Amino acid sequence: MSGRLITLEGGEGAGKSTVLEAVRERLASRGLDDVVVTREPGGTAFGEAVRAIVLDPVRKDVCPESELLLMFAARAQLVREVIQPALGAGRWVLSDRFTDASFAYQGGGRGQPLARIEDLERWAALIKPDLTLLLDLPVAEGMARAGARGQADRIELENGDFFERVRAAYRARAAAEPARFRVIDAGQPVDAVREAACAAIDAYVDSVTRDA
Amino acid sequence: MSGRLITLEGGEGAGKSTVLEAVRERLASRGLDDVVVTREPGGTAFGEAVRAIVLDPVRKDVCPESELLLMFAARAQLVREVIQPALGAGRWVLSDRFTDASFAYQGGGRGQPLARIEDLERWAALIKPDLTLLLDLPVAEGMARAGARGQADRIELENGDFFERVRAAYRARAAAEPARFRVIDAGQPVDAVREAACAAIDAYVDSVTRDA
Repeated sequence: MSGRLITLEGGEGAGKSTVLEAVRERLASRGLDDVVVTREPGGTAFGEAVRAIVLDPVRKDVCPESELLLMFAARAQLVREVIQPALGAGRWVLSDRFTDASFAYQGGGRGQPLARIEDLERWAALIKPDLTLLLDLPVAEGMARAGARGQADRIELENGDFFERVRAAYRARAAAEPARFRVIDAGQPVDAVREAACAAIDAYVDSVTRDA
Repeated sequence: MSGRLITLEGGEGAGKSTVLEAVRERLASRGLDDVVVTREPGGTAFGEAVRAIVLDPVRKDVCPESELLLMFAARAQLVREVIQPALGAGRWVLSDRFTDASFAYQGGGRGQPLARIEDLERWAALIKPDLTLLLDLPVAEGMARAGARGQADRIELENGDFFERVRAAYRARAAAEPARFRVIDAGQPVDAVREAACAAIDAYVDSVTRDA
């Protein structure tokens, strides 16, 4: 069975970390016990250094173009250093955010043109996920949960309008690519969210196994 | 008189720092005594943080795509935070390297496609220099001089073939845009290099004053 890239997306406070761990366990219970888990921006020594710059709350005045370029700089390295080698070796990769996040945050949130991001996706990111779980949550609820968590990074410090645009962009992408996306209602109790994510994973692994 | 962007380009060991200072003095002696001097990659707090990553010799395996994206991330911020406001206020700007360096190093040196760099120039860099002084020097000579200077950064650690491609790309750009470029033979004694640069500046200031 060849490798697959599964990504987890969602706004602030949607419970990505909890779901990531549940998905990893579910994949292991299905025999996929050497999944490579990574995150964006970051996932490589280079990318984590870039992450520290792009999320630093001190850098209030970073222009949207620079933010977009840094996100893809970290992503280009992650793809070439981690994701492609893993997929080439037949391993599955589970990433906390990927290119959809740039369409949502730098596109929807910051207003960077879609064509610009698609172009960067083509030559810098190279690959698209095979399956994307989108944890969807009303913005006010997500902000309340994220706020309770303490110190916010530069992007988490944005206002509600920004996150409404992010959510709308995420939902538009899910609507445009229903075969790749599974939208999960992250407003449910956490056990139900986890179960919905694991059910999606089960169904996906079944389909891949059936096709193999 | 409106602002102008003058850039200084050249390979390793071509004497950019010496010429930069001479050019700044010459501009001042022509009445342009509030010139904004900057450098690439860097020139802003954000850009200097990016510079530290992209030039760090520890990061041997940074992919060419990420290197290109970081250079333009720093540049996009420099243009919006420093260069455009200065030009808008009628000030002249003198930059130690600008977009031509990406065509030379990431294009010629790393093989990134011309069209990709032109596209980034269009939406991330936005502006082109009004005048560019290219300090041209045989690669062996430049490397010998740079080597004598001590610790090299990640890009300076490249081999002779890399710098031959960088030089060829610089010369090709100068040949393609003769109205903007002045090519200075940096193999001359340092006083002669300085004098050639200052003569080019004098002629340019004369032409701008005449047109005004």
